[in-house]
Amino acid sequence: MRHLLLAATALIAAAPLAAQSVDRQTVNRIIDQGTNQSQVMQMAQHMTDVIGPRLTNSPQMREAEAWAQARFREMGLKNVRAEGFDFGRGWSIERSSVRMTTPRPIQLRAIPIAWTPATNGALTAPIVVAPMSEEEDFAKYRGTLAGKIVLVTHPGQPSDPTEPAFKRLSGEDLSKLDNFQQPTHDPEAANRRLERLDFAKRRDAFLKAEGAVAWAQMARRDGGLLHGEGYLFKREDTPALPAVEIAQEDYRRLTRLVRLGKAPTLEIVSDVTFHDEDPMAYNIIADIPGTDPDAGYVMAGAHYDSWVGGDGAVDNAAGSAVVMEAARILTAIGARPKRTIRFVLWNGEEQGLHGSFAYVTKYLASRPPETDPAKAQLDQYYTWGSRWPITPKPGFDDLAAYFNLDNGSGRIRGIYAENNPAVVPIFKEWLAPFASMDASTVAIRRTGGTDHVFMQQIGAPGYQFIQDPLDYGARAHHTSIDTYDRLRAEDMRQNAIIMASFLLNAANADKALPRPPLPQRPVPTDPFAWPKDDD
Amino acid sequence: MRHLLLAATALIAAAPLAAQSVDRQTVNRIIDQGTNQSQVMQMAQHMTDVIGPRLTNSPQMREAEAWAQARFREMGLKNVRAEGFDFGRGWSIERSSVRMTTPRPIQLRAIPIAWTPATNGALTAPIVVAPMSEEEDFAKYRGTLAGKIVLVTHPGQPSDPTEPAFKRLSGEDLSKLDNFQQPTHDPEAANRRLERLDFAKRRDAFLKAEGAVAWAQMARRDGGLLHGEGYLFKREDTPALPAVEIAQEDYRRLTRLVRLGKAPTLEIVSDVTFHDEDPMAYNIIADIPGTDPDAGYVMAGAHYDSWVGGDGAVDNAAGSAVVMEAARILTAIGARPKRTIRFVLWNGEEQGLHGSFAYVTKYLASRPPETDPAKAQLDQYYTWGSRWPITPKPGFDDLAAYFNLDNGSGRIRGIYAENNPAVVPIFKEWLAPFASMDASTVAIRRTGGTDHVFMQQIGAPGYQFIQDPLDYGARAHHTSIDTYDRLRAEDMRQNAIIMASFLLNAANADKALPRPPLPQRPVPTDPFAWPKDDD
Repeated sequence: MRHLLLAATALIAAAPLAAQSVDRQTVNRIIDQGTNQSQVMQMAQHMTDVIGPRLTNSPQMREAEAWAQARFREMGLKNVRAEGFDFGRGWSIERSSVRMTTPRPIQLRAIPIAWTPATNGALTAPIVVAPMSEEEDFAKYRGTLAGKIVLVTHPGQPSDPTEPAFKRLSGEDLSKLDNFQQPTHDPEAANRRLERLDFAKRRDAFLKAEGAVAWAQMARRDGGLLHGEGYLFKREDTPALPAVEIAQEDYRRLTRLVRLGKAPTLEIVSDVTFHDEDPMAYNIIADIPGTDPDAGYVMAGAHYDSWVGGDGAVDNAAGSAVVMEAARILTAIGARPKRTIRFVLWNGEEQGLHGSFAYVTKYLASRPPETDPAKAQLDQYYTWGSRWPITPKPGFDDLAAYFNLDNGSGRIRGIYAENNPAVVPIFKEWLAPFASMDASTVAIRRTGGTDHVFMQQIGAPGYQFIQDPLDYGARAHHTSIDTYDRLRAEDMRQNAIIMASFLLNAANADKALPRPPLPQRPVPTDPFAWPKDDD
Repeated sequence: MRHLLLAATALIAAAPLAAQSVDRQTVNRIIDQGTNQSQVMQMAQHMTDVIGPRLTNSPQMREAEAWAQARFREMGLKNVRAEGFDFGRGWSIERSSVRMTTPRPIQLRAIPIAWTPATNGALTAPIVVAPMSEEEDFAKYRGTLAGKIVLVTHPGQPSDPTEPAFKRLSGEDLSKLDNFQQPTHDPEAANRRLERLDFAKRRDAFLKAEGAVAWAQMARRDGGLLHGEGYLFKREDTPALPAVEIAQEDYRRLTRLVRLGKAPTLEIVSDVTFHDEDPMAYNIIADIPGTDPDAGYVMAGAHYDSWVGGDGAVDNAAGSAVVMEAARILTAIGARPKRTIRFVLWNGEEQGLHGSFAYVTKYLASRPPETDPAKAQLDQYYTWGSRWPITPKPGFDDLAAYFNLDNGSGRIRGIYAENNPAVVPIFKEWLAPFASMDASTVAIRRTGGTDHVFMQQIGAPGYQFIQDPLDYGARAHHTSIDTYDRLRAEDMRQNAIIMASFLLNAANADKALPRPPLPQRPVPTDPFAWPKDDD
């Protein structure tokens, strides 16, 4: 009840600023469809249980691309299509096993690292612990790695998980999100990323040159969780050696046995396959056409691709199913929006937002090419935003609003205004009917790391919802337990209802969402700061 | 500092009640040995990493039995011996794998259930979901299980882990433990246990008779954790069918695919071995002889056996290493106690406290045999305490104190007085030097479930320490991640210091710990309660 009263007050205050473009009767029909007739869990289940992990360009992702298009067509959406962009190889796991065979037999929890090559049967070799985090480390191990499986991560220390794994946001948590932060720029981020990627390649080459037969890294979460993330997905970058990620508990045991002088032998089976039939990855796009062809469009998106440790449930079958369910709800209520409503399932997000980048540069704006040949190899996430000027494309102004969902299955608690105070009263009005569903916060904070980022970087209206984290960060994100079990049906339904309502509000609003000025090259925050020594 | 002041006050108050039998200079030497010269982690590491899981009568347990005896002898302990008792088969895992092969290939997290037979290579069959929790359920599935792998657990719903996995006890937590609870008796506990055990056998027979090829149960914790507990360890009870425990996330996925009409096929490899060379299990016993042969003895114990999901670290290499380290500390400081100090590593605890039962009935007391032939099959945990009268053995009064450690690696925060108010002031005095090490609580509460229970049941002075739980209950106890990573070195050292100090105090005390009266058959709590209908 507290929520309802607050929201009602907010609505009255906001009323002069923006017209309510969706009447409450329509909201009620959206709620009825999104609760009593919901298909969101059925769609999420198909993506996770039936299709499984959807690594970009894997056979499962191809199946998922076809399924989503068929589903959108069944719903009656128009212009359903797969828009391709250049990506790289597909990769999938058929079978895998890592066993310690000496000093005693034990089955380890492990997973092949994405885009590493197969072992071709069982590969058995002794291990050596050789933590390497920069090229200078290579010298320490030169001449000691031949015939070995090399453990490249420092084992560190186990942690004490003193925070609950599963959380919902309190009022205090939410209020902390509403603080305007002046834009900052980190010119070194690209160099750091380049160094990491470059290092991964150089380490692989070093290990190969030294005659190592495989390598292993330690999982970054404990409790037996695995991730399997790997980034060398371009055919020309394919690693030379098979590689696995080993659970922390098992990895540390291996290192302790080495410290004790009892270096174990491992038997690795990594039965994986590369898929090179088509190097293009595809965004899946579908429209509810608008009644006014000149009014532009609004868009909802979620990335559809995942890692392979689990089934890619909270990251991001959740968001994908919500986007598809929002489409279903809006077609089911017979919505006839003024603007076109577009639904997009992005691809290649996990490897650097490649799908949304392809869309933005095709339809919205361009920036000059990267002139540093080293940085030009990087995914655009690290460099595009700092190249000037922005040159809008003809479709630049057509995008009236974009809503992204990529924070798991937790219910929507509000929306981030992404440092744009002009949208705050509008979002408050659009949220008003959902205060009793726990969604009432508009927080100014800017967010990153997912597919609205390139839109934000050109001043286009890309927004992301605030969601309850549940156990996303603590144990589900990218892990082996990111399965349908992590999804919460009531939350997913609420997400779809609010997404559908926001889309319809934005599609029928008198005006597109207010944008910030077209971004220009920013002046430095401290123009008189002395350059760093290493610059 | 607060702790120190409180403890000093307590000491003054307690002084008239019991003499301090260990001078503070000796405590300092114990602390020096237990910190600067500690070997507790080295011993725990040998038990976990090197030996691994120590299922009763498995080859690893045999290795562990030999190692502990050798180690006790090296320390200079006397009468080092392995005392046998009749147990059953040994069992160990060489290799295991469970894969879903259709509708898509995926490696599942699974573990063979203890004491189930091998698959002899890969067993491939479709699954059927047939939750059975009582014999009445069999009828539902008769005629439908031939050639199938049967999933016998109801999948239920995933949980929200809203509590931290890792906890230390607050002052409030500790104060709640200090409430006297009148003894209660649950005459139905034995029947329930019998029903469960009996049901496991009948289900196995039913599945075999129906032509099922294997069965699977769901793990009882989520997050990919596995346990593998099984209780049919008598050669004559050996199950007919191979069986595995599957992680919750994987198990529920299987059941959802069945609900969708896409019943998966599993490929199970359970390469396990029974060990029948010797049906006897062995408690490992070692003494520091007392200077007064008529003064009896004090004893420290921990169970040494474990399940096989992990390496049996917090359950209970932790307690075993602490007991051995207490022995090492006391020999290292050259302790010459009045009473003999005995160190025992129990065996067969996980299957029903078999090791400590064997000791108690050999040295301390007997009770009449079970007259109900059904209940006579049960482990004594469920029936012994309710058979009357108790007949003390000649050694009954020799045991002056017993201290058990079986609650993981968390530091000692105090001790349970086990409903015996007479020991409270004595324990308070013995704890006094350790208030600044977080151990100052004497709580009256009675505890169960481990190896002091049979002593308690005859009024012998068996006690257990209060320990910080850490992540014992939430994720470590019996699971696949119960490895050395779960142990905390500072806690383990503190445990050994306090254990050594308590043993020496008890060994040198003027009198044995005050006992309750020899237990007699209790009158019913409510003598006029009408019997239940089913009695």
